[in-house]
Amino acid sequence: MTELRVGLLGLGTIGIGVARILIEQQDLISRRLGKQVRLVAAADRVLDRDFGLDLSGVRLSSDASEIVTADDVDLVVELIGGYEPARTFVVTALEHGKHVVTANKALIAKHGEELFPLAAAKGLQIGFEAAVGGGIPCMKALREGLAANAIESVYGILNGTCNFILTKMENEGADYADVLKEAQALGYAEADPTFDVEGIDTAHKLSILAAMAFGSKIKFDEVYTEGISKITAADIASAHEMGYRIKLLGIAKPHANGELQQVEMRVHPTLVPVDSQIAQVSDSYNAVQISGDFVEHTMYFGRGAGERPTASAVVADIMDITSGFPDGIAHLAPPMGFVESSRREIPTMPIEDAVCEYYIRLMVKDQPGVIAAVTSILADHRISLEALIQKERHASNTVPIVMMTHETTEGNLQAAVSRITGLDAVEEDVLILRKESAVA
Amino acid sequence: MTELRVGLLGLGTIGIGVARILIEQQDLISRRLGKQVRLVAAADRVLDRDFGLDLSGVRLSSDASEIVTADDVDLVVELIGGYEPARTFVVTALEHGKHVVTANKALIAKHGEELFPLAAAKGLQIGFEAAVGGGIPCMKALREGLAANAIESVYGILNGTCNFILTKMENEGADYADVLKEAQALGYAEADPTFDVEGIDTAHKLSILAAMAFGSKIKFDEVYTEGISKITAADIASAHEMGYRIKLLGIAKPHANGELQQVEMRVHPTLVPVDSQIAQVSDSYNAVQISGDFVEHTMYFGRGAGERPTASAVVADIMDITSGFPDGIAHLAPPMGFVESSRREIPTMPIEDAVCEYYIRLMVKDQPGVIAAVTSILADHRISLEALIQKERHASNTVPIVMMTHETTEGNLQAAVSRITGLDAVEEDVLILRKESAVA
Repeated sequence: MTELRVGLLGLGTIGIGVARILIEQQDLISRRLGKQVRLVAAADRVLDRDFGLDLSGVRLSSDASEIVTADDVDLVVELIGGYEPARTFVVTALEHGKHVVTANKALIAKHGEELFPLAAAKGLQIGFEAAVGGGIPCMKALREGLAANAIESVYGILNGTCNFILTKMENEGADYADVLKEAQALGYAEADPTFDVEGIDTAHKLSILAAMAFGSKIKFDEVYTEGISKITAADIASAHEMGYRIKLLGIAKPHANGELQQVEMRVHPTLVPVDSQIAQVSDSYNAVQISGDFVEHTMYFGRGAGERPTASAVVADIMDITSGFPDGIAHLAPPMGFVESSRREIPTMPIEDAVCEYYIRLMVKDQPGVIAAVTSILADHRISLEALIQKERHASNTVPIVMMTHETTEGNLQAAVSRITGLDAVEEDVLILRKESAVA
Repeated sequence: MTELRVGLLGLGTIGIGVARILIEQQDLISRRLGKQVRLVAAADRVLDRDFGLDLSGVRLSSDASEIVTADDVDLVVELIGGYEPARTFVVTALEHGKHVVTANKALIAKHGEELFPLAAAKGLQIGFEAAVGGGIPCMKALREGLAANAIESVYGILNGTCNFILTKMENEGADYADVLKEAQALGYAEADPTFDVEGIDTAHKLSILAAMAFGSKIKFDEVYTEGISKITAADIASAHEMGYRIKLLGIAKPHANGELQQVEMRVHPTLVPVDSQIAQVSDSYNAVQISGDFVEHTMYFGRGAGERPTASAVVADIMDITSGFPDGIAHLAPPMGFVESSRREIPTMPIEDAVCEYYIRLMVKDQPGVIAAVTSILADHRISLEALIQKERHASNTVPIVMMTHETTEGNLQAAVSRITGLDAVEEDVLILRKESAVA
C-alpha cells in the first residue's frame, strides 16, 4: 500500500492532536484512501515530557531543520506559528521536495506570495485549511465546492475570542473590559489580547479568503482593520433595539468599475440583522458566509480553534495530498483555487470608497438645537437617516444619540462625522459602526 | 491546454443552468484549473424551443443514447431524474469509459451500489454533490473536509419544500393544508407533494449521507420515514412554548454494541432547541450538520434546490474530475469517501431500538382521572416526563394534552402509547414527535 510519511514541527496542543489522529485513526484513514499515512518524525523544543500519547515509533527531535531535510519525510506539518522561523522551515521543506501543511495564518497571509509560486514550481502542494476557520472545511468549500462561481461576497466570523466576548457582552449586558478579563481567566483570550481583539487575526484570515475568492494576490497589509475594544454594552443594546446584533466580521467583495477591478477588504465590528443566519453564530464558534453568482448564499459553521478541530483540518489536508501521492499532485486543485500563473495583481479598494450603512453613536450636551445641528450636517452630505434614537440623559448631563444611516461612502461619512465632532455640543469620541444588511 | 468534453442529458432548468456556467464562466474555469471544460453535446426530448442561451457549437440531440456512447464525450452529466431510463444511461456511459456527474438522489440512493463498483472497476469517477443539499458543497465537506474524523452524527434539513411549509406554518400560525396550497401556488411544492412532504426525498438523501459518513452501503429502503402532514399549527405553537421549533430532519448515527455495528437512520419531524443553529434555517434553505470525533459540530447551509445553485454543484463535480483528467482520476477521493473495497455491509438499527426524547399530543375527554391514567401508564413503562401542558378545552369538550418525555426507546414508547390510545377517555389519534437536544 502506498504510504506518505509525515514529519511534524511543533508538539503543542494542535501538534498532539495531529499526532493523535494519525496514530489512533490509522485504520479509518486507510479505509478512506486506500493508502497509508505514517507519522515518522516530530520536532519540539521540549521533548522530555508526557505527551499523553504513545509516540513510540516516531523519531523525536529537538531540531526542526533535521526534519525539513530528512530523506524519510514526504510531507512537513508546520505548527510552530508566527512568521519566523516557520517561514524558513517551510521554504527549506519545499526546496527539499516536501509537501507542506500548516495551520499558520500569519505565515500564509504574509509570505504566501513567496511560498505558493515556490511550491508550484516544484510540483508540490501547500495545505492550509486549518489556518482559516479552524476545523471548518471552508477553504475547500471556497476553492473546490464553489469553483463554478464568481464569488460575490465573503463574510466571516473568524476569531473565536472576539465572538465569545461579544456574545457574553450581549447575553449579560456586561462591558468589554469585564468580559475580556473573564475571557482571559477562562483561557479564551491571551494575556495580551491585541492580536485577537484588534482584528489582526481576522485580517490575516480575510486576506487569504479574499485572494482565494477572487484569484488575486494576498494583501494582508491592505486590509482595513478595526477591533472590538470600543464597543460598549450600550452599543450592543442600541443595536439590538434596532434589530441588529454586533459581530466582528471580515468582509471581502469584488468591484468592477469598467476595466479596473478592485478588491474591498475590511475587518470591523458590524451590525447584522438579528434574525440572519450569521447573527446566530455565538460563543467561540466561527462561520464563513460565501455567496457566488450561481450558488447564492452559503454558510460554513464550526469550531474555529482548539486542539481537536484544528487537527481535523490539518489531517484533512494531509489526506488530500496523500490521495495525489506520489504522482498525482498535479491533479489536485491548486492551493489558492487558481493556477499560480492566473492569479492576478488586483488593487485594493481604498476604504474611502466603501459604501456602507452606518451606526453612529454620539454623546452630546443636553441643550436645544444639537440634534438639528447634527442632522443638518448629515443633510449637507446627503446622508439620510433610517433611525435616530435619543437615549435618557447621563448623570454628566450628556445625552447619547444613536443614528442609523442609509448607504453612503465611507469618505463622505467620515467628512460629515469630522464636522459633527467639531460641534461644541458634541462631547466625546464618536463611535462609527458599519451595518451589512446583505448577509444571509 | 487539456480539455474535458461534456455531454449533457436533460435541458430542463438545471441542465440549462449547467450549460450556462460552462459557456459563460469558461474563462473563470480555465483560470482555476489550468484546463478547459467544453460542452460538446446535449440531449433533450424537445429541442425546438428557446433555451435562453446561445447553444451554437453544442451538438443537440433528441437521442440520449447517442451521447452516452459518443467518442467525443469524456463526461456525461445526467439530469433526467428518476430511476429509469437514468440508470440505463449512466450504466452505458460508464461502460463506455465516461465519467458521470448527476444531481439524481433517487438514482444514487437506489442504484448507487450497482454504479459505484462499476465506476471503480473502470477507473471512472461519479460525482453527485448536487444530489444532496443542492448547491451546498456538503458531500465534499463530509467526504474530504472531515475525512480525519469518525463521524458521530448527521442531521439534515434536506427538503426545501418541507422547510418552507414548516417555516410558514410557524410564522403565520397557519395550518398544514393551507400552507401546502400556497406552496403549490408559488411553485415550491408539486401538485402531488407526497415525495417531498412524506419525507421520501429526505430519506433518499439521508441514505446517501449515512453511507458516506460511516463507510457503509446505501440502504434507502431501511430508512425509517415520517413526513410532516400530521403537524398542526397547535403542535408548532406547543413546541415553541417549550423552547423548540419543528423541522423535518434526516438523522443518521453510528452505533457500536460490542462487535456489532449498526447505523441508525430516521427521517421525521423533529423538535430542535429554538436557539440552536439548525433551528434558524428557514424558508426553503437546506442545512446539514455533521459532527465528528475531532472536529465537533460543523454545519453547511445554503440553497438546496433551484437552477443556479444546483448547477453550481454539478459544475464543481465536473471541475474536480477535470482536475484529475485525463490520467489522475485515481488520485481523487473515492466518490463515497471510502475506497470501494473497504465499504462495509452494516446493519440498520431497528427503529424500536432508537433512543429519543418524545413530544406526545393527545386529545382527551374533559373528565376526572384522565391525566392520572395516562401518566401511570408512562410510569409503568419507566418513561419520565420533562413537561406536561394541558391546554384549554375545545368546543367538542375534548382537551389537548401535550407531554415531553425524557429519553426512552422507541419500542418502549410505542408500547406505552398503544396502551394510552386504548383508554376510553383518549379520543383521537395520538401524535408522537421526536426531539433532538444534541444538535448545535
